Amino acid sequence: MKIILVGAAGDVGKAAYDALSGRHEIITAGRSSGDVKVDLASPESIGAMYREVGPVDAVISAAGEVEFGLLTDMTVDRFRFGLENKVLTQINLVLEGLAVVNHGGSFTLTSGILDRDPVRKGAGAATANGALAGFVKAAAIDMPNSLRINVVSPGLLEVSADQYGAMFPGHELVSSKRVGLAYAKCVEGANTGQVVTVD
Amino acid sequence: MKIILVGAAGDVGKAAYDALSGRHEIITAGRSSGDVKVDLASPESIGAMYREVGPVDAVISAAGEVEFGLLTDMTVDRFRFGLENKVLTQINLVLEGLAVVNHGGSFTLTSGILDRDPVRKGAGAATANGALAGFVKAAAIDMPNSLRINVVSPGLLEVSADQYGAMFPGHELVSSKRVGLAYAKCVEGANTGQVVTVD
Repeated sequence: MKIILVGAAGDVGKAAYDALSGRHEIITAGRSSGDVKVDLASPESIGAMYREVGPVDAVISAAGEVEFGLLTDMTVDRFRFGLENKVLTQINLVLEGLAVVNHGGSFTLTSGILDRDPVRKGAGAATANGALAGFVKAAAIDMPNSLRINVVSPGLLEVSADQYGAMFPGHELVSSKRVGLAYAKCVEGANTGQVVTVD
Repeated sequence: MKIILVGAAGDVGKAAYDALSGRHEIITAGRSSGDVKVDLASPESIGAMYREVGPVDAVISAAGEVEFGLLTDMTVDRFRFGLENKVLTQINLVLEGLAVVNHGGSFTLTSGILDRDPVRKGAGAATANGALAGFVKAAAIDMPNSLRINVVSPGLLEVSADQYGAMFPGHELVSSKRVGLAYAKCVEGANTGQVVTVD
């Protein structure tokens, strides 16, 4: 398969790359690195990426940003930031890709554990993750061309623990290998409308 | 208890009102009707409502709008509309209320069935509903003053079937009485961080 992987430079993106690159042609994409540059906040930039790469069999997104903060420190704009930069960005990637992904191809998005196993300061992330879960569940039954769509929801990766571990007390870390398997399942399997959890 | 009910004029709001008004003092609020006027898109309007009503024991929101459309007809702006008008509005109501709801009080928001039992054209609604589920799950563990927060997720109400039934093939309708019980559970019970479903 020919696969676009957005956010390939991050820990989750690397896990997906390592799981799939031995068997497939992967075009990496990112805001500042990768084979092609893309800004997921811009439909035009996404469209340009799809035109540059040409038809693909799968699109993986491992990109997204949210703001963390205690609920009493959060503002509606900080919640909006996560919905714009983790949810609407990935939805955009899907909408722009509907006409360019090959028949029977797939979209695999990325959310995270915080809507099912919350932590303090994590309401912005949980809101975004929940939105993505709802989106793929419903989008799956509305897809043209037998396209599939799923979202991988990983726990905190071992390789990310130095940076984020203090915010996730008691959370079991997950290996990059197990996270990579979830992307392989979504790309090479037949599931659709699923939240594929890695806990 | 003294309770603010936003969106009291809608079918869901009426169900909540009928379930609770016999035992509590309910101040109804809405964009164009109710005891007080409020525009949930405006933090200033929400703040003015809370100042006018004074301290309350519970806040119920039965307000929210999303756009419906086939995935191939949807744009990112139509998804944004739902996140702005069903999710960020209700989050705003909570954030502005954190300092004015009495110790041990509660917030009860409203989502809907489409993120767990999707229909065609429903991806915008499912995205918003999922976001609200994630929000209450995480916000519950970050609440000050022993405040609680839940979201009621009703199926299609019997009284709404004339308007929306054609979009929900095979869905069992739910009675307003059962929907009202869900709000009573959230306001008078002790649960927090829950999606209270009415299927």
